Amino acid sequence: MTTDQMTRRQALALLGKLGGSAALMQGAALFGLARPANANESSQPTALKPAGQGGPKVLILGAGISGLISAYELTKAGYQCQILEASHRAGGRNFTIRHGDLIDELGNPQHCQFDNEPHLYFNAGAARIPAHHTAILHYCKELGVEMQLFTNHNKNCYAQDPAVFDGKPVRIREYEADVRGLYAELVAKSVQGKSQLDQPFDDIAIEQLLQFTQAFGDLSADMTYQGTERAGYLSGGILSHGKLKQPRALADLLRSNFVLGAMHFAEIADQSSALMTPTGGMDQIVNALLKQVGSLVQLKAQVKRVQLLPQGVEVSYFANGQQQTVRADYCLNCIPSHLLCGIENNFPEPYLQVMRQLRRGKLSKIALQAKERFWEREQIYAGISWTNQDITQIWYPPHGVFKQKGILLGAYSWDPDIVDRISALPHKERIELALRQGEAVHPNYRQYIEQGNSICWQRMNHMLGCGAVWSDELLERSFSVLQQPVGQHYLVGDQVSFHPGWQEGAVRSAWFALEHIQQQELKKRSAV
Amino acid sequence: MTTDQMTRRQALALLGKLGGSAALMQGAALFGLARPANANESSQPTALKPAGQGGPKVLILGAGISGLISAYELTKAGYQCQILEASHRAGGRNFTIRHGDLIDELGNPQHCQFDNEPHLYFNAGAARIPAHHTAILHYCKELGVEMQLFTNHNKNCYAQDPAVFDGKPVRIREYEADVRGLYAELVAKSVQGKSQLDQPFDDIAIEQLLQFTQAFGDLSADMTYQGTERAGYLSGGILSHGKLKQPRALADLLRSNFVLGAMHFAEIADQSSALMTPTGGMDQIVNALLKQVGSLVQLKAQVKRVQLLPQGVEVSYFANGQQQTVRADYCLNCIPSHLLCGIENNFPEPYLQVMRQLRRGKLSKIALQAKERFWEREQIYAGISWTNQDITQIWYPPHGVFKQKGILLGAYSWDPDIVDRISALPHKERIELALRQGEAVHPNYRQYIEQGNSICWQRMNHMLGCGAVWSDELLERSFSVLQQPVGQHYLVGDQVSFHPGWQEGAVRSAWFALEHIQQQELKKRSAV
Repeated sequence: MTTDQMTRRQALALLGKLGGSAALMQGAALFGLARPANANESSQPTALKPAGQGGPKVLILGAGISGLISAYELTKAGYQCQILEASHRAGGRNFTIRHGDLIDELGNPQHCQFDNEPHLYFNAGAARIPAHHTAILHYCKELGVEMQLFTNHNKNCYAQDPAVFDGKPVRIREYEADVRGLYAELVAKSVQGKSQLDQPFDDIAIEQLLQFTQAFGDLSADMTYQGTERAGYLSGGILSHGKLKQPRALADLLRSNFVLGAMHFAEIADQSSALMTPTGGMDQIVNALLKQVGSLVQLKAQVKRVQLLPQGVEVSYFANGQQQTVRADYCLNCIPSHLLCGIENNFPEPYLQVMRQLRRGKLSKIALQAKERFWEREQIYAGISWTNQDITQIWYPPHGVFKQKGILLGAYSWDPDIVDRISALPHKERIELALRQGEAVHPNYRQYIEQGNSICWQRMNHMLGCGAVWSDELLERSFSVLQQPVGQHYLVGDQVSFHPGWQEGAVRSAWFALEHIQQQELKKRSAV
Repeated sequence: MTTDQMTRRQALALLGKLGGSAALMQGAALFGLARPANANESSQPTALKPAGQGGPKVLILGAGISGLISAYELTKAGYQCQILEASHRAGGRNFTIRHGDLIDELGNPQHCQFDNEPHLYFNAGAARIPAHHTAILHYCKELGVEMQLFTNHNKNCYAQDPAVFDGKPVRIREYEADVRGLYAELVAKSVQGKSQLDQPFDDIAIEQLLQFTQAFGDLSADMTYQGTERAGYLSGGILSHGKLKQPRALADLLRSNFVLGAMHFAEIADQSSALMTPTGGMDQIVNALLKQVGSLVQLKAQVKRVQLLPQGVEVSYFANGQQQTVRADYCLNCIPSHLLCGIENNFPEPYLQVMRQLRRGKLSKIALQAKERFWEREQIYAGISWTNQDITQIWYPPHGVFKQKGILLGAYSWDPDIVDRISALPHKERIELALRQGEAVHPNYRQYIEQGNSICWQRMNHMLGCGAVWSDELLERSFSVLQQPVGQHYLVGDQVSFHPGWQEGAVRSAWFALEHIQQQELKKRSAV
């Protein structure tokens, strides 16, 4: 193995993974190290029974997706809700950044200077919703959030790897066509070169295997790979014969990290077509929820103390320059566990122990405003280019096609070492990094970029991290410790799911708590 | 081979092909029989030089895409254009059907009864635009046509084949995950079971080949396939461990036509991500062109006679109950060649000969109005399900997500025998066919469908066919005969391209003629 080559674990650390900590789990899926990714749990919450007059009071700590959904469902059933949110905005990691928005990174606060146009935004956190995430989609539907298609996979995007092809960007289309073709040719040779008995495929009709192999690789009649229109033509095709591109060598292709990792990214259940995203930005979901329960949200209210009472919960918080204390029958606590365990509390020790062991993912994104949508001239209208530089990915917006300007995601990184490097840079230097590395993918990149914004979630005020990262061992041993309430206190959010980093985890964690509260209420009533 | 199994040519005839005659060529691409599919020709037309006062008169026969584009470019340069269109509408095979529209099939005219809602339409002809079709996209951009993503491939759609799995629909996600996994396992066995010398892969690093194989199939650490989250979980995944689905047997999977054909459909250059479609229907392109040149179009004007003159062209047509005759300096003739050769003319014999040999593709679509978007409950929001019944495909609309009703494409057939069978049915029986066969893909399908529309292009008035079908031999020998003008008469349209059935072929054919006219004009002027 040359030094360009990587072990499976190393490749995993660099590519094939994605946002948040779900992140790490998703990447793992590429290599058969996977933990759960999707589900077919019920697509609707249990309908809460009306709480009756003077319904129980529920205090919700955090106005992210799990908190807002909880308030929405509870108020529909007559519970009295109050939401305390530490930061200046609701939504949590559902955060769409536009003109004027504050990115409240500690030591590095930025105001977004993008032009004030509806299509000039980027989703700094959650950005895509797989079709099987039925819980979050339930609310998109119920609240009338307009949806459009999203795609990770676009054959016209590039893969770039310094280790192969002189570091030149190569269209994913060409990678895929050649790898399929050459791999299929190898298989065909292997199958055809042996007597029937010598085959490991005794129970498979060899003819069908060859037919599949031919269709898979677009092999010629003689079962060799001679290039394919799938790779796009070198020239011609409409008014003259298309000229095929020359295939690359399989040995070279297989030296590329892309082929060993990211090429299979859109096979992952959560990353595969059809994906969707709200038209106009992911925060359309937050806005729709705020229309329902916005009046219950108090911003800039920082929780200082959580006390479990024999019945209910007492919370002290700091807001408007004063400390205040409130009591409630129930508390749904969405504060990130690694912060929560450092807030004054009287939680039982085993509960705290798990919180203290639960790590957080790191994630950074850099968004760039382009004065010209140069990628459209390169026949790119959505999807992701991959590079194994620190920027890792470039995303092209699927919206605002043909407009003058657009927002590129110029970097999306989740490898902890990479994110630490990016996080250690002041804003300007991050942009410079994105420009410099982006030029390996798009020559002359820099000339099109007017300005940028960056976000490192582990430096974000009141968050200090992305999704929870459960080790296998901790998940097995202690998930239910955090999932179960202590008294009337519930820890919720995507952190209390097998799917952190996804809104689906947040919603289902809330649904779990709501159902549990309902059980407690029904017990109380039947006891009366 | 059992009778379930098909030869490559047979499989080709049934699946893996698509609309029009480009159709046949595209399908062929699956099996290495391909002709050209895309191109990197210039993405802009040659700018026509101003024609000056009293610019030359150009008569355009047919208001499809090639005719409208021609008129748009020519009038910009000061040419005087007149467009005669035989049918009651402009657009040709760019035809979006909505409430009240007439589908003018001979002997089977229908008025569309879909509810009068903006999202309740279907694209009866052109429906998708690949990102490399830069000529038609040039106009979408220039004319401000709003675009959105489109996808053929959606892992949540189904493949259904009576020959396998008791004819039950299987998610494409499961097909793909299992086929990749089991195929990879076979390769791994084959590679690992041999001494290095025995390998056909001498020049490939075996370790990398195995790494790729593992990532490709999502194999376990021991290089066996044990199922994968890529197939979607049987249960759980968000609040509990996801339970993997049991893989199917490779022998069964390989007996499916889907695996041998359509599974590779979205690898075809013209069918691969990212595809786009105009928001609100493909005819937004026609509408944008009509805003520019609509006043030049005379509908219901049927050409009866085309005469080449020593200078120019004379055309007689029937309109408003009368025959009229006009002369022009140039004629751009978009009339389908198989009809044109039956109109009185004085074309040279070799020109006519080619027209007489040029066949037409057949294509039918059946659209169904669903009173409920039941597919969304099945986690489907776009894409295509495949079946090897006559209906061949079911398309789910990528627009109007979460609205009450939607229009499904309940059948999309291009195999000539199949289309002949559908074409021979009265409208009502076509709908019944779509419902009956659709129930093999979606049980209870029928209960959701309120009404439908059907279109068989070979019965469409003034068209009598879909895209041109060039045999290899005819294309080699005679393409340039039709592409070159006779005198001042140019045959244009997608029929005069290597890419019939696509708007890209229509636009580039027009561009070819326009550039030729420009050359003639420049010669004339320099001669003066």
